[in-house]
Amino acid sequence: MKNSFTKAVVEKGSGVTNNAQKKWNLLAEEVSFPTAVLNEQALTNNARWMQRFSDESAVKLAPHGKTSMSPELFQLQLAQGCWGITLATVPQVVNAYNSGVKRIMLANQLIGLYHFKLIADLIIDTDIELYCFVDSIDNAKALDNYFSSRGVTLNILLELGVKGGRCGWRDIANIDSLVDVITQSSSLKLTGLSFYEGVIHGDNSHQQVCQFIDEVKVLAQRLLTQQKFALPEVILTGAGSAWYDVVAKELLPLTSDFTVVIRPGCYLIHDTGIYQEAQNAIVARSQLACDIAGDLISSLELWAYVHSIPEPGLVIVGLGKRDVAFDAGLPTPEYSYRPGNDKPSKVNGWQVVKIMDQHCMMEVSLDCDLKPGDLVIFSSSHPCLTFDKWRYIGIRNQDFTVEKTITTLF
Amino acid sequence: MKNSFTKAVVEKGSGVTNNAQKKWNLLAEEVSFPTAVLNEQALTNNARWMQRFSDESAVKLAPHGKTSMSPELFQLQLAQGCWGITLATVPQVVNAYNSGVKRIMLANQLIGLYHFKLIADLIIDTDIELYCFVDSIDNAKALDNYFSSRGVTLNILLELGVKGGRCGWRDIANIDSLVDVITQSSSLKLTGLSFYEGVIHGDNSHQQVCQFIDEVKVLAQRLLTQQKFALPEVILTGAGSAWYDVVAKELLPLTSDFTVVIRPGCYLIHDTGIYQEAQNAIVARSQLACDIAGDLISSLELWAYVHSIPEPGLVIVGLGKRDVAFDAGLPTPEYSYRPGNDKPSKVNGWQVVKIMDQHCMMEVSLDCDLKPGDLVIFSSSHPCLTFDKWRYIGIRNQDFTVEKTITTLF
Repeated sequence: MKNSFTKAVVEKGSGVTNNAQKKWNLLAEEVSFPTAVLNEQALTNNARWMQRFSDESAVKLAPHGKTSMSPELFQLQLAQGCWGITLATVPQVVNAYNSGVKRIMLANQLIGLYHFKLIADLIIDTDIELYCFVDSIDNAKALDNYFSSRGVTLNILLELGVKGGRCGWRDIANIDSLVDVITQSSSLKLTGLSFYEGVIHGDNSHQQVCQFIDEVKVLAQRLLTQQKFALPEVILTGAGSAWYDVVAKELLPLTSDFTVVIRPGCYLIHDTGIYQEAQNAIVARSQLACDIAGDLISSLELWAYVHSIPEPGLVIVGLGKRDVAFDAGLPTPEYSYRPGNDKPSKVNGWQVVKIMDQHCMMEVSLDCDLKPGDLVIFSSSHPCLTFDKWRYIGIRNQDFTVEKTITTLF
Repeated sequence: MKNSFTKAVVEKGSGVTNNAQKKWNLLAEEVSFPTAVLNEQALTNNARWMQRFSDESAVKLAPHGKTSMSPELFQLQLAQGCWGITLATVPQVVNAYNSGVKRIMLANQLIGLYHFKLIADLIIDTDIELYCFVDSIDNAKALDNYFSSRGVTLNILLELGVKGGRCGWRDIANIDSLVDVITQSSSLKLTGLSFYEGVIHGDNSHQQVCQFIDEVKVLAQRLLTQQKFALPEVILTGAGSAWYDVVAKELLPLTSDFTVVIRPGCYLIHDTGIYQEAQNAIVARSQLACDIAGDLISSLELWAYVHSIPEPGLVIVGLGKRDVAFDAGLPTPEYSYRPGNDKPSKVNGWQVVKIMDQHCMMEVSLDCDLKPGDLVIFSSSHPCLTFDKWRYIGIRNQDFTVEKTITTLF
């Protein structure tokens, strides 16, 4: 495995978080670079910020766990008081439950025989509280066939979608055929509604997001009046990392009748790219977000060596597509560090212009004094796709020492 | 971890290749989808094809192992008779050595204190035969400082590069200052020359590749005449997966004086995207490649469920950026399978138009009869970036049963 945190773990052959006696100083080059580390201060700040936002919005927080898939980070989020953890796939659900998460929202359709078995077994054998999304009659019938045969009941959230979007029933006004299949089934319990507004883009996206939520609200209230829900607590859930303020605000009037749950995922790690942009828009439009002290801080750093400066102004760095997300902007050089110096220095004007599997190309000024063996510290855009490249990630303190590491379960 | 091969392994708590008694039938949905599998026939075919190409070209093969980082696949390549394995980073070198690979080319600069230590320890403690690339005086001096202090000698291949390319000394005619640092050092042994022509693109790339190789040849012969090399066997190495035929052909006249080593990596897995395109060009221009029976076959399959068909013609599939490479073309739907049917059917005209973290959107004809729970089997482009998303990959036989699995060490 590629970083030295792993090596220590492998040598120990036991849990990673138990190796607290082992420390790695990054400035002393005690690890293999490139490596991914999290700034502990930023991480704690972000966990608290979003929990506070949710609390003050009178909504519940079920962070999307697919971003990190890290048991240690799930525990950090639960310790802050989140309602549950959202996940995207059945293996993620199983891994999260095995990591101590009891209330899980599978924000996806439950599909496939092997997954049906896994989930039925979990429900029978454990104390899991699980919800999953359904957006088609075919899927509802397949679920009922299987779960009825096992004598297991399954909590269902109807998933609603927008035209051209991802999953979700499109014609919200004409959803009764799907509602009927679920409410008349012997194994499926209709426990609420769900949606994901993050697929809405373009110039008037704010207005479109609000219109979509309005439709969902009308349906929610109609189904409540018609007593279609199977349990007294009815869930109404939406929101990724870009519109959680709007979802929380629009659904606030319904919080007396519904448990409103938002599901942002990227806030804990955050970035300096697409999610920083989204957060800037949130802080600009949400008085509440603006009022909460501080803001989200990008916590993820990629440390990598300069390998070569083969031409003036062109620096080849040992950081590639294998190490960092590259789908929503290339990594941003933030600091450089020459081993032996006191601490990293802020850099300016350097730019990654190309990225390959194991290297990137960075343009710098012609008189830049970088040399092979210097370190460059990058921030990035889209944390999900950096996290899945690392099995272990260090948590560094303000002395640039890693005293804790986290695992990822991808 | 995300696929069920893992689960079996975790349950066993031991090596993956020892669980041969465990079988997973893909058509019977005995695994969690999405999953990545390798077609065993294609894999064996590819391993043999490239070894035969190298043998008949009178060059040695050191497959780039960064593609798969899989001990089981390294063994497959070594069993075919390859000369060694090429790798891109020090952790990859360590993992490969620990997997039984004795002759390793680090096709990269060796940078950083922790890496110096790891490599010096490996050289002292084991029977590894290691070569690494050097392209700067700064790096050569840093290596000599460290390795001299340890009393360890290190085999160096001078790395040569092209303007605008990646690493590699640019002014090939004026390289003596670097050669002198290496030959006058006490710990570095100049054992050959290396280059990577894969960064050359554009309309007259074939001609440029040949010109570049010509420059390398002139230098190689000059340094040989000047007796600059430290060992009787002198290595001359180039070639990724796109130009290995040209490199082998151009360097053939030098095979009496040099050990010529080519380093393609993607051939073993192959694809239906950029490497299929490159291979088509190779077969079109190389009589030798054309004469070898058969050809490379894409061996990697991604199996994933249809989750939703929320609008006619729009299919949402449970396969995302977390599961498959997307940087060199989106995955290609090849077959579909409805559980209960005899076998998968070839599909035509379906196209993935967008990919997100855990889903992709596929356009199909309006009357397509897919439904949630059907499986779609995809090929892909750029195997390196699919491999690093999976910790275990199944090898399926012609009955669609996985009887062996491989590990990856990313």
